[in-house]
Amino acid sequence: MDSRSIRLAVIPGDGIGTEVVDEGLKVLQAVGPKVETTTYDLGARRYHATGETLPDAVLAELREYDAILLGAVGDPSVPPGVLERELLLRLRFELDHYVNLRPVKLFPGVATPLASSDPGDIDMVVVREGTEGPYAGAGGAMRRGTPHEIATQESFNTAHGVERVIRYAFDKARGRDRQKLTLVHKTNVLTYAGDLWARTFDRVAAEYPEVTTDYCHVDAASMFFVNQPERFDVIVTDNLFGDILTDIGAAIAGGIGLAASGNVNPDRTAPSMFEPVHGSAPDIAGQGKADPTATILSVGMLLDHLGFADAAGAIERAVADDLAERGDAVRGTSRIGDDITARVAG
Amino acid sequence: MDSRSIRLAVIPGDGIGTEVVDEGLKVLQAVGPKVETTTYDLGARRYHATGETLPDAVLAELREYDAILLGAVGDPSVPPGVLERELLLRLRFELDHYVNLRPVKLFPGVATPLASSDPGDIDMVVVREGTEGPYAGAGGAMRRGTPHEIATQESFNTAHGVERVIRYAFDKARGRDRQKLTLVHKTNVLTYAGDLWARTFDRVAAEYPEVTTDYCHVDAASMFFVNQPERFDVIVTDNLFGDILTDIGAAIAGGIGLAASGNVNPDRTAPSMFEPVHGSAPDIAGQGKADPTATILSVGMLLDHLGFADAAGAIERAVADDLAERGDAVRGTSRIGDDITARVAG
Ligand SMILES: CC(C)[C@H](C(=O)O)[C@@H](O)C(=O)O
Ligand SMILES: CC(C)[C@H](C(=O)O)[C@@H](O)C(=O)O
Repeated sequence: MDSRSIRLAVIPGDGIGTEVVDEGLKVLQAVGPKVETTTYDLGARRYHATGETLPDAVLAELREYDAILLGAVGDPSVPPGVLERELLLRLRFELDHYVNLRPVKLFPGVATPLASSDPGDIDMVVVREGTEGPYAGAGGAMRRGTPHEIATQESFNTAHGVERVIRYAFDKARGRDRQKLTLVHKTNVLTYAGDLWARTFDRVAAEYPEVTTDYCHVDAASMFFVNQPERFDVIVTDNLFGDILTDIGAAIAGGIGLAASGNVNPDRTAPSMFEPVHGSAPDIAGQGKADPTATILSVGMLLDHLGFADAAGAIERAVADDLAERGDAVRGTSRIGDDITARVAG
Repeated sequence: MDSRSIRLAVIPGDGIGTEVVDEGLKVLQAVGPKVETTTYDLGARRYHATGETLPDAVLAELREYDAILLGAVGDPSVPPGVLERELLLRLRFELDHYVNLRPVKLFPGVATPLASSDPGDIDMVVVREGTEGPYAGAGGAMRRGTPHEIATQESFNTAHGVERVIRYAFDKARGRDRQKLTLVHKTNVLTYAGDLWARTFDRVAAEYPEVTTDYCHVDAASMFFVNQPERFDVIVTDNLFGDILTDIGAAIAGGIGLAASGNVNPDRTAPSMFEPVHGSAPDIAGQGKADPTATILSVGMLLDHLGFADAAGAIERAVADDLAERGDAVRGTSRIGDDITARVAG
């Protein structure tokens, strides 16, 4: 067993976030590395109690951990965007999580809604940019509430921001069997941003002759996720397109209950943050029926990021085994957590 | 037979555009209404020959027709965005096609990639905004080609533009069996634009008490297209989200070869334009193997828009019958056109 100890900040957040994080931690405790966790109360409850979303002092503290595990944030009682922008996106931006890493993998035994896809056909990684693009928060409105209102929303794309995520994606592609990287954008309409992305992609590609490259408009890529998912190995794309594609990815790989993600700062100037792709699901919160598998797989990604490759592998195997035997049996949140824990511990 | 005559401008465009338009016209000639067509040479050929995309004089002429039938524009020999922005999008914008109408319907007999969906589950209409949003073309770049480049892309949303398309969608939903309308946006991240869309949607909804309303973030909606398509009846959404959703829609309803669309100016201040959702597909151009069905269905929408409901119905029925008997037989472009023509004529 590795003797290093992990200092982990935990943000359970809202809705099912708290439920799935409990199971993620259960598996983490069982799998090996020593962990010290500190839980942060951030999300709708704190917002209603104090008006705070992410106090600067808390952000400063969070910087000191090895990694962050997040459940989900967002609640219908809070105006749209407040927790998303001021808490979740602020964390991604301030901690420079420029890679939002989202594997899309169909595990054996998992039912996909696609009639003719098999596990081997759906095995890709989406490298979504995480710190700029349409998520910048830039824009405004004037004459709000009048017939003359205008509302704008701006996408910011920088050479710095685009190049670093593209390089990461090429490195990732080089390390995989198929060594294929697809850029997804909408260069024929979003010509300024698209031009920067496409030019940067081509320039960096020259340094990776072993990687096969491809380009798809986002509309075509979304279609191919459904009718030709085997087309993709690694995908690199902007923040908004990546948001959309990875939800389609979750759908084809068996549902949002299984989709893991990492908000990664590859330069390690701040802790990376791991979270399930799903949201807080207020409709099923508190009922113990959320699937914690996405969070458990996110814990696996966290361990991998911190260099605990064996522990990460053990989690992925335990989840794969659990999924392979799942069938139609219905188990609650903690039961799934217990079963996967037993597998990693055994 | 209706004695009015249709004055139709035809823009075959690039690649398979010319091939599929021929079949659309064949069916149109057979179905009844008298038609006078004038063909316009616009697209890659003209661009290379003269540098022109859409001369003002041509645009002025086009305004005088009852409708426009377009095949597809775009060719790898032309820089990305030139034909799309200066020809296709310019037509949509100048002719005020504020409704981009895209039915997503699985016809009986058509294979969908979704394992457990039946024709009744996939029967929706996407009302995509067509004249603003991220398609406005606003943005810019500075320090291009340097490590300090910044490229921006702006989404413009106006009360005028948002309200009119939302009203159209409510009217559409009221006239359908399920009377359900879903707004798709990303209000939790694109807060300025999302706020305008959501507020306008709620305000107009009060005038349509019979219509059931719903809201989905675009990422969730994209997922639901794949694993719960029966959730949707009519959808209203912005230009970019509509572009993406309707390609997913094409995928689940049997492929891009069947997806029809209308760029509609509901106020009839300029002609509406009908086109298949697919592009120019340079890889299969000139081989007579493109499926003209999407164009033929677009011709049906054109007739419906011009008030020839019987002829429109005849086309939809002929296509439905053709699809029901298609099976795995492979027919070329003109053969499919001939077969559908025989059905409408018979
Ligand atoms: C909650 C929301 C802000 C977030 C996003 O859009 O990035 C979510 O959809 C995701 O994909 O992590
Ligand atoms: C060709 C392109 C500009 C166009 C669009 O993005 O609108 C196409 O994808 C469509 O959906 O009609």
